[in-house]
Amino acid sequence: MTAKRVAIIGAGPSGLAALRAFGAARKAGETVPELVCFERQATLGGMWNYTWRTGLDEYGEPVHASMYRFLWSNGPKEGLEFSDYSFEEHFGRPIPSYPPREVLLDYIVGRIKRDNLEGDMRFSTSVREVQWDAEADNFLVTVEDLTCAHVYSERFDYVIVASGHFSTPNVPAFPGFDLFPGRVLHAHDFRDANEFAGKDVLLIGSSYSAEDIGTQCYKYGAKSITFSYRSQPLGFKWPEGFEEHPLLLKVDGDIAHFQDGVTKKVDAIILCTGYKHYFPFLPDYLRLKTHNCLYPASLYKGVCWIDNPKLLYLGMQDQYYTFNMFDAQAWFARDVIMERLDLPGRADMLADSKVWVARDQALENASQEIDFQTDYVRDLMTYTDYPPFDLDKVAALFKEWKHDKEEGIMTFRDRSYRSVLTGTMAPPHHTRWMEALDDSLEAFLAPVEQPRVRASG
Amino acid sequence: MTAKRVAIIGAGPSGLAALRAFGAARKAGETVPELVCFERQATLGGMWNYTWRTGLDEYGEPVHASMYRFLWSNGPKEGLEFSDYSFEEHFGRPIPSYPPREVLLDYIVGRIKRDNLEGDMRFSTSVREVQWDAEADNFLVTVEDLTCAHVYSERFDYVIVASGHFSTPNVPAFPGFDLFPGRVLHAHDFRDANEFAGKDVLLIGSSYSAEDIGTQCYKYGAKSITFSYRSQPLGFKWPEGFEEHPLLLKVDGDIAHFQDGVTKKVDAIILCTGYKHYFPFLPDYLRLKTHNCLYPASLYKGVCWIDNPKLLYLGMQDQYYTFNMFDAQAWFARDVIMERLDLPGRADMLADSKVWVARDQALENASQEIDFQTDYVRDLMTYTDYPPFDLDKVAALFKEWKHDKEEGIMTFRDRSYRSVLTGTMAPPHHTRWMEALDDSLEAFLAPVEQPRVRASG
Repeated sequence: MTAKRVAIIGAGPSGLAALRAFGAARKAGETVPELVCFERQATLGGMWNYTWRTGLDEYGEPVHASMYRFLWSNGPKEGLEFSDYSFEEHFGRPIPSYPPREVLLDYIVGRIKRDNLEGDMRFSTSVREVQWDAEADNFLVTVEDLTCAHVYSERFDYVIVASGHFSTPNVPAFPGFDLFPGRVLHAHDFRDANEFAGKDVLLIGSSYSAEDIGTQCYKYGAKSITFSYRSQPLGFKWPEGFEEHPLLLKVDGDIAHFQDGVTKKVDAIILCTGYKHYFPFLPDYLRLKTHNCLYPASLYKGVCWIDNPKLLYLGMQDQYYTFNMFDAQAWFARDVIMERLDLPGRADMLADSKVWVARDQALENASQEIDFQTDYVRDLMTYTDYPPFDLDKVAALFKEWKHDKEEGIMTFRDRSYRSVLTGTMAPPHHTRWMEALDDSLEAFLAPVEQPRVRASG
Repeated sequence: MTAKRVAIIGAGPSGLAALRAFGAARKAGETVPELVCFERQATLGGMWNYTWRTGLDEYGEPVHASMYRFLWSNGPKEGLEFSDYSFEEHFGRPIPSYPPREVLLDYIVGRIKRDNLEGDMRFSTSVREVQWDAEADNFLVTVEDLTCAHVYSERFDYVIVASGHFSTPNVPAFPGFDLFPGRVLHAHDFRDANEFAGKDVLLIGSSYSAEDIGTQCYKYGAKSITFSYRSQPLGFKWPEGFEEHPLLLKVDGDIAHFQDGVTKKVDAIILCTGYKHYFPFLPDYLRLKTHNCLYPASLYKGVCWIDNPKLLYLGMQDQYYTFNMFDAQAWFARDVIMERLDLPGRADMLADSKVWVARDQALENASQEIDFQTDYVRDLMTYTDYPPFDLDKVAALFKEWKHDKEEGIMTFRDRSYRSVLTGTMAPPHHTRWMEALDDSLEAFLAPVEQPRVRASG
């Protein structure tokens, strides 16, 4: 009998969680399936890789990462810590609560590389099509090796879709965009705040992208930041130079007109209007179709495709929990694949899913959402041996973080939190976030602020 | 017996030529196959549609058009005139030789719409896969209706690939791009020269994109234009504010370093580094793999895929001739499909192709290239009833145009040429190109220059 074969699509946080989950089983002496991981980029890390490229990459494929320079975690690292691999273990000492991108990338990739869990990685490979072959009882996965434009197919018993859902921008149009004399871009293509220094920047949207890119542009010298919201303003205590208006009606040349009658000259427009779940490689009967929510329908336990549970999705939820939730999902997926877990029948899976979906839809505020996702992760963890951690403390930490942001949107990243794993209180960073212009790992880990060499551009 | 079915991929200049070719046969009383045209955009015209969007479109698909605002034809319209539909017929009177984008779009789409040749158009539809089914002797074409994320397949006896090859950017990296504080973009994402007013702009490349975007930015107020070339400078008589340097070595912050030792501060970098032939929907055994050249190998008469001549490609060559060459190819493809033309055997097709390819590879200058493509179009036209036109006159016109550009890169668009079809000399435009800031069809066709309403942004 040949070994089971599992295709993992994507080597970002969710795909790496899958590699780690199987790695843990192998370490425990179990026979694990043959894993093949298809990754469009040339390295591990998915979204957490930075590239100056926008739109299409060197092979003509859509650029995956929506990552920009100078991105610092917008939530405390203590909320996303892996329960089997603490930050302290990785860095050899406690580090501040809000690390920049490169530090988080190092952490998630380091967990895989130290234990040599990469296995059969197919980098620079784009998945073109997945088909279920009912007769053969397996999937036919067709991919293209982009380095040589070679298209080939392989068979797999299971497919794990871990391709993320913050890569394909949702880009609405507004009247006048076709004649606007400045740059109109989606947050997905935002790269370097320095480009907007001295400019009047308009951001459409009122979620994390708007908030973070707006404060970022301000930090790097934008002249003014204007947010435009559909339903609710961000509502933070903004410093001078910020304003919020209801939805943009149109632009007339470079004059933005808002629903409240205000007009304002703007130099650039950044659409912070969210992302789409996008799976062009999946046929209708395998494709998750959902908006961004905490509990997409048609997935059992947020993971198994109910119509064919040999297809598994990781990380397709909207997220308070991130890396640790992906782990909980990956351990669950692993145990389904290794048949350590018996799935209920289709009707029961649907019924279970419906309860969660209904509960999600009734949520009224962020605090309830945090509790909901806490319960979801807690439920998942009852099925597997993913190392337990104190979820109530993490939920409390998320609520504290929400409060800290309300207290000071430009200063919350200067705060410290306690690890629920190690009990260690994070040390303060050597530089306040507003003054920390160098976002390199080297500068972050240095004992004191370094001369600005790398960010001197 | 059911009618033959033909899939046309793309409704740009080449796809429209195919519709016109079959339309002409139908008009002549012949029974033509059933045509289905799949087009990712929502309208006819392909590349000639303008959108403010860059990167990915409203459905998450790569934006097709590399079109920018204020693009005027960079060659005289008399070189691309359809031999079955003159500009004079379309506009009802003679018009100047260098029309802006909207005027050319109107011309190519008008020829189809006036005769109701659209037929079975599947707009907002992306082709996901084409497979040859040897047993059934036809193609299985899988597409996605993007408006409802519905994937479906249909069978076709022939497939015409008319998806263009100026849509997928070739984007090389240079050291320092990851820390460059301004915008780095490919010409594919260039939209509005106003964005670069007052800026020092660096363009990498020395072909049409560099030349046109550089002059465009200058026209709309860029502070300086710097070209960087790999092999040869553009070499035109540039006005003050332009400079040319050999290839960029690196950028250090915002300082560009060139191979000649020169350094220069730049605010934005535009990569005018060409495009890739990109067919992610085609398997290896059907996929044209070529660089941009006047005679791609593996195509008989530049059209038929030699390994399976039921697959036909239109417009895959580099181009002096454009719309009229696509016509000559489309008429040829039509006659292959309608079996009015007998194709030689595989060996003979290969031998024929090899002669052309060898001749292409030996070409030494633009004048020889023009003669080569003239011969190619002339050869194609001997096989079909595409209305003959004086190819020698068009070749002479292209050479005159080359000379006119050398005389004045900022003024060549003020010149007029004689239609080889109607014999009419084009009238001068009411405004010199450098002063014509409004590129609308309305402004172009107006008897005198209009107040700048539309371009006031």
